[in-house]
Amino acid sequence: MSELTLKKFLAGDVELESGETLPDARVAYCVRGTLNSTKDNAIIMPTHFGGTHEHSQYLTGKGRALDPAHYFIVTVNLIGNGVSSSPSNAGGPTFPVVTIADNVRLQRRLLIETFGVQRLALAVGHSMGAVQAYHWAALYPNFVERVGAICGAAKISRHNDVFLQGMRGILTADPAWKEGHYDAQPLLGLRTMARAWGAWPPSSHFFRHAHYEKLGYSSVSDFMERYWEATYTGMDANNVLAQIATWRSADISANELYKGDFEKALASITARVCVMPCTSDSYFPPDDSKIEISHMNNAVLRPIKSQWGHWAGSGRNPEDTDFIDKQLKELLLN
Amino acid sequence: MSELTLKKFLAGDVELESGETLPDARVAYCVRGTLNSTKDNAIIMPTHFGGTHEHSQYLTGKGRALDPAHYFIVTVNLIGNGVSSSPSNAGGPTFPVVTIADNVRLQRRLLIETFGVQRLALAVGHSMGAVQAYHWAALYPNFVERVGAICGAAKISRHNDVFLQGMRGILTADPAWKEGHYDAQPLLGLRTMARAWGAWPPSSHFFRHAHYEKLGYSSVSDFMERYWEATYTGMDANNVLAQIATWRSADISANELYKGDFEKALASITARVCVMPCTSDSYFPPDDSKIEISHMNNAVLRPIKSQWGHWAGSGRNPEDTDFIDKQLKELLLN
Repeated sequence: MSELTLKKFLAGDVELESGETLPDARVAYCVRGTLNSTKDNAIIMPTHFGGTHEHSQYLTGKGRALDPAHYFIVTVNLIGNGVSSSPSNAGGPTFPVVTIADNVRLQRRLLIETFGVQRLALAVGHSMGAVQAYHWAALYPNFVERVGAICGAAKISRHNDVFLQGMRGILTADPAWKEGHYDAQPLLGLRTMARAWGAWPPSSHFFRHAHYEKLGYSSVSDFMERYWEATYTGMDANNVLAQIATWRSADISANELYKGDFEKALASITARVCVMPCTSDSYFPPDDSKIEISHMNNAVLRPIKSQWGHWAGSGRNPEDTDFIDKQLKELLLN
Repeated sequence: MSELTLKKFLAGDVELESGETLPDARVAYCVRGTLNSTKDNAIIMPTHFGGTHEHSQYLTGKGRALDPAHYFIVTVNLIGNGVSSSPSNAGGPTFPVVTIADNVRLQRRLLIETFGVQRLALAVGHSMGAVQAYHWAALYPNFVERVGAICGAAKISRHNDVFLQGMRGILTADPAWKEGHYDAQPLLGLRTMARAWGAWPPSSHFFRHAHYEKLGYSSVSDFMERYWEATYTGMDANNVLAQIATWRSADISANELYKGDFEKALASITARVCVMPCTSDSYFPPDDSKIEISHMNNAVLRPIKSQWGHWAGSGRNPEDTDFIDKQLKELLLN
C-alpha cells in the first residue's frame, strides 16, 4: 500500500449538528485511481470504528470491484479515529460530539471543494462505514448513485445502543479516566472494555470453530490478549469515546430533512442499494436490514452467509471478502 | 407461593472437585407435592444464575407439567446464590470454586439421604439449571429417567466463556472490590457489569419490539436502570463471582468418568432428553444444541421460537412458558 498518501482537507471551524463548533476541522483521506474528465467515477469509502484508511483497502485493488484502474476511490477517516480531527490531536476531553451526519457533510465538502465531484458512483463501507454510506444516500439523494452497505444499518438499533452504552460505561468506570482529563491512558478501563467487547464482533460460530487460529492466534486467551487487549490498549480513550458517540448518533432521519421520520428518510433514497448484512452479526442482524429494505425503493438484500459475525465485512475472511466483491461488481454494472 | 418452605440439607465438610473443602455445606431447597410410596415421582429443578427456588416456580403448579398433585418437585438453590452456602453467608473472598458437578453431587446426596430417592422422573431447569440437569444425566445415567434442558448446554462454549470472563473483568476492575475483601459492595463494578450484561440475555428482537414494556418498563433507560442496575447492585459481588466460576466449570466430561471426552459423555446419557434452546439465545444458541443432540441416543430438539432470547426460558413470556410446559408434558408422558 505504498501508494497511499495521506492528505488532509482543512475545513476550518465547522458548526456541528449539536450547535457546537469543531475548530480547525481536518478530514484525513487518501485516494486511489484517477478522477475521469466527466467526474463520474468517484467512490467514497468512509472508515469503520477503530479503523483508518489503511484498514479499508482490502476492498480495493486490481481486479476488485473497487479497481483503481477504473475508479477514483476516496477513503475518508472518520472524525475521532485519531487520524482525522480527534480528541487525541485536538481538544482532548473537550472534543465535541460529531455525528455521522456531521461526518458526511464534511466529506461532501471535501469532494466538491477539492475535486469538483458532484455525484458519487458509489458510497460504500463496512460497519460505521456502511452507516455513513446510508447517511450519504438519505441526506444527499441526488449525489449518490449507488450504496454498498456491508454489515451496517441506517439507524442504530436499541440493542446495539445498549451494547455501546455498556462499553462506554466500562471505560469511564476506570478512575484513571478522570472525566477524560487523564495524564496517562486509563489502561485498566481500555483492557476491561476490550475483553468484554471481544465477545461481540466475532460470532459464537467463530469461537466454536476456532477461526481465531486462521488469524494466527493459538487459543482464545491468546486471541483475547494479543488481539483485543493489545488493539484497544493501543487506542486513545477519548478517541474511543468520541467514536462511540458518533456511532450512537446513527439515524438517517434525525435531521431537519426528515425530522425523525425514519421510513420517509429510507423512502427518499434514490440510490441503488446493495445491503450485505452478515447472517451471524450481533450488531446489525439481517432482520434489521430486512425492515430497512422494505422501505427503500431500490434496494436488494445480499446476506453474507458466514460464521465470522460482524467481522465478515472486515476483510479478515477471504471468502466473505470475495462474496462482497462480487456483489459490488454486480452493483457497479448497473 | 406461601406453601414454599425453605429447608436446608446439611452436608458437612464437602471435598470439592478442585481438592478444596467446602466447610459445613448447606444446600437450601424447597419441595412441592408428595413423594409416592414407590419413590418414582421425584423431579429435581436446580436454580439458574442469580435466581433462587422462588424464581423457578413458574414451571410448577396445578395443570402444569410439573403439577404438585402428581410429582414431588425438589427445587434446589445453586451453591453461591446467596441462599445455599455462598460467599455472603460463609467464607466471603475465600469461598472455593464449586463446580456444576459439585452441585449435582450434593443434590444427589440430598435426594438419597433425606428422601431415599434413587431415581428421578425428571431433571429440569433453565440456563444453569439446564446445565445442572445435563450433568445429572451424564454423571448418574441410572439415576435420571428424563431431562428437560431449557436454554442451556452440556458444556460452556468458548463464546459463552469469553462473555463471562468479560463480566467478571468488569466487576473485579472496581477498586472497591479489593480482591473480594470489600467493606461495602463494589457498587460501581456491579452497576457497570449490569449495564454491559443487559445486552445479552434479552435478544436484539426483544429490544427492537420493546418487549421491556410488557415487563412494565417505559423505555430502554428505565429498563436498564430499574431492572439491570437494581437487580445486580442488589447482589453480593463475591456471590456473583462464585456463580460465574460455577458457570464457567460447565462440562459434563470434565471428570474422572469421561476424562474430557465430551462425545463419550453425551453418548453415555440414557435419559430421554428434551432440548429446548431459544432461537434468539446469545448464550446457548440452537446450533450448539444440535451438535450435542447428535451425540445423544435419546434426545429431541424442541426450539423455542421466540424473540425473548435467553429469557424465553425464564418464565417472563407466558407464550414461551406455555410452549415449554407442553414439551415437558409430552416428555413426562413417555
